[in-house]
Amino acid sequence: MPFFSSRWVEVPAWVAESGEPGLPRGFRAAGAAAGLKAGGALDVGLLVADEPGTTSAARFTASAAPAAPVQVTRERADLAALRAVAVNSGNANAATGRAGLDEAARVQGAAGVAARVDPAHVAVCSTGVIGVQLDGRKVIAGLLKAQESLRAGGDDDFAAAIMTTDAFEKRAALDVDLPAGRVRLTAQAKGAGMISPSFATMLCFVQTDAALEAETADLLLGVCVKRSFDRISVDGQLSTNDTVLLQCSGASGVAVAPESEDELAFGQALDALLRQLALLIAADGEGARRVGRVVVRGGNAGGVEAVARAVADSPLVKTALHGGDPNWGRIAQAIGGALAGGAPVPFDIAIEGVQVASGGQAVRGDLEGLAALVDRPEVEYVVGLPGDGHEAELFFSDLGHGYVSVNADYTS
Amino acid sequence: MPFFSSRWVEVPAWVAESGEPGLPRGFRAAGAAAGLKAGGALDVGLLVADEPGTTSAARFTASAAPAAPVQVTRERADLAALRAVAVNSGNANAATGRAGLDEAARVQGAAGVAARVDPAHVAVCSTGVIGVQLDGRKVIAGLLKAQESLRAGGDDDFAAAIMTTDAFEKRAALDVDLPAGRVRLTAQAKGAGMISPSFATMLCFVQTDAALEAETADLLLGVCVKRSFDRISVDGQLSTNDTVLLQCSGASGVAVAPESEDELAFGQALDALLRQLALLIAADGEGARRVGRVVVRGGNAGGVEAVARAVADSPLVKTALHGGDPNWGRIAQAIGGALAGGAPVPFDIAIEGVQVASGGQAVRGDLEGLAALVDRPEVEYVVGLPGDGHEAELFFSDLGHGYVSVNADYTS
Repeated sequence: MPFFSSRWVEVPAWVAESGEPGLPRGFRAAGAAAGLKAGGALDVGLLVADEPGTTSAARFTASAAPAAPVQVTRERADLAALRAVAVNSGNANAATGRAGLDEAARVQGAAGVAARVDPAHVAVCSTGVIGVQLDGRKVIAGLLKAQESLRAGGDDDFAAAIMTTDAFEKRAALDVDLPAGRVRLTAQAKGAGMISPSFATMLCFVQTDAALEAETADLLLGVCVKRSFDRISVDGQLSTNDTVLLQCSGASGVAVAPESEDELAFGQALDALLRQLALLIAADGEGARRVGRVVVRGGNAGGVEAVARAVADSPLVKTALHGGDPNWGRIAQAIGGALAGGAPVPFDIAIEGVQVASGGQAVRGDLEGLAALVDRPEVEYVVGLPGDGHEAELFFSDLGHGYVSVNADYTS
Repeated sequence: MPFFSSRWVEVPAWVAESGEPGLPRGFRAAGAAAGLKAGGALDVGLLVADEPGTTSAARFTASAAPAAPVQVTRERADLAALRAVAVNSGNANAATGRAGLDEAARVQGAAGVAARVDPAHVAVCSTGVIGVQLDGRKVIAGLLKAQESLRAGGDDDFAAAIMTTDAFEKRAALDVDLPAGRVRLTAQAKGAGMISPSFATMLCFVQTDAALEAETADLLLGVCVKRSFDRISVDGQLSTNDTVLLQCSGASGVAVAPESEDELAFGQALDALLRQLALLIAADGEGARRVGRVVVRGGNAGGVEAVARAVADSPLVKTALHGGDPNWGRIAQAIGGALAGGAPVPFDIAIEGVQVASGGQAVRGDLEGLAALVDRPEVEYVVGLPGDGHEAELFFSDLGHGYVSVNADYTS
């Protein structure tokens, strides 16, 4: 199956899925089993950029209960020059207090030694259960094991090591033909539940051998995250651990200069990459069967965003999506709830291009035909509110028995 | 099983569950099958207060997509002197536009004739599917049938006629011994899904033969709704149709004067009644197995309320409640999400009186013992945020397979 699989991602003509596996020049990675996950699965990942001039950019969760590794990386790493990434799954190191911060800092120090870089150039990330003290010794032992197998093709083990409840891997290796030359763009992401309202319980690591100034990397990552991981909701739950990193080794010798055609083209490639990864996370949404896209347009920015969030997070809309039920009344309900306290709103609703409500009331349409249209892997909802000039988009998973099974039984 | 079944409801000593069935003096009711529900079930209810001096009070959904009957009742009825209530289930008459408003007004007119009162003293209510035109003729035919069987003991059929996905009836008949004398207080409620963030997809009709001025009824109803239906969340979804009505016939001859001991005692009885009904709605929450109560205390009113809502609406917390899993990490996550964008918050969490987190981090406690405590029908969570002076309370249902089954298959 090709990586680009959604109709909601525009893939530029200069972006191709690469036939070759492995990381871009200048990167090596590995995974190891450190005993944090049961059954000897890979649970510690190490990724190293060997070029001293590697630039980077980062984005983190906005949670007011940020995990220890998020706090440590944000406050004690040079986010513009990250050389190494140390990740563990199986334990989020969140709500672990001062001891958790110390463990995260120790892991950062050890990873610096393992990667042969200054600890200030190491990002640390964790994902897994919240509120259980992380045994940093296990992570460090895993990092030392991983160090021995660092290789350009180690992104497969690295990707496996970051997964938790993910049903499938979220990875890509792209060739991008910029005006200035060909560069490689790879990514490894994880995330299934606890996704939203900013970008998710998700980790995403992106590497390129293009040469970008750190400011350029930061600008592009910021814009692309806003259009991808910021726009997905599995369950409306903001994670404690979300982290997205972009690292640029420059090893291709192809420079992406600020405000150049190359920057535009690279940005569009990154946009397609992150949007497809975000859609994969929504599609993986713990037991999900379908992905919905809601687009809301109207004259009030706050209202447009509130309605999009309300539709995407509504368990009634999500269960209807799961059941393949074109029950637009639940969208009407979500609109009314999002704008509660205001006057009755003359909303329009279209599902898969079929107008079902106009001016707040039902439109007689081909509801029989609509039932077939919503019984597919991707379903699109467009909501019109009074006025124009603002638009909000969200991707969301359905809510089915799988979500309940995963989350009612996932051990604390 | 007694009506008062929750430890979270304080039942005043002067309130007793009545051994006698039926409505208070001055009221008659009936139900009829009008073909709106499948299978010939009761789906139209009529309730009449025969005393011309009957007073009343009402509360409605804050939805910006209010159903037609909500709009008609709110705008075209004398809410302080409601004499009759006409309800249908099987169709919400919501998102039905001008035609829906006309149908609601017609039903109001017909109900006035059936009840022998001015239509301006009739409240109309609907519950059921959204976005399908209501056939008012069916409702009117049902009202005429109901009219023939109006009786003091008709609250049983009336209660049955208002149910939709409810798994059990929510009714009470109480004797209230006020200082001024004994009065009767009865109620019929419905509601299971689409409950929150203000009071619910719920209808609740309360009758008493006490004599209250309309202002007193309004004051007491407002206070009690704020402590009951406003504080429950099944799925965080605000309904288009929520309506709560209190009618006071005065037929007992016992007056509840403003600012009297009687007012205080009657208010406490009404409070207990509505809180228990709200808890029954949460307990019935479409497939629910348990009810949670979250109490949040802290120095910032907005933050306290946001955290309570976030915990009560979190599908991760709800699935953990369903699974009997004392996974407090999900509460930490909900706190962090509710206060996103702020600095790390040193929260405290106790579950069933067992402290599990303090100052934002895990507390070593008896988690084994806790597992047994959360495997019960009612589970209590207390969250402490910095500062004090504010408190918010919410009751919420769990999220299990039953919710998915009900909502993925419930026809549009």
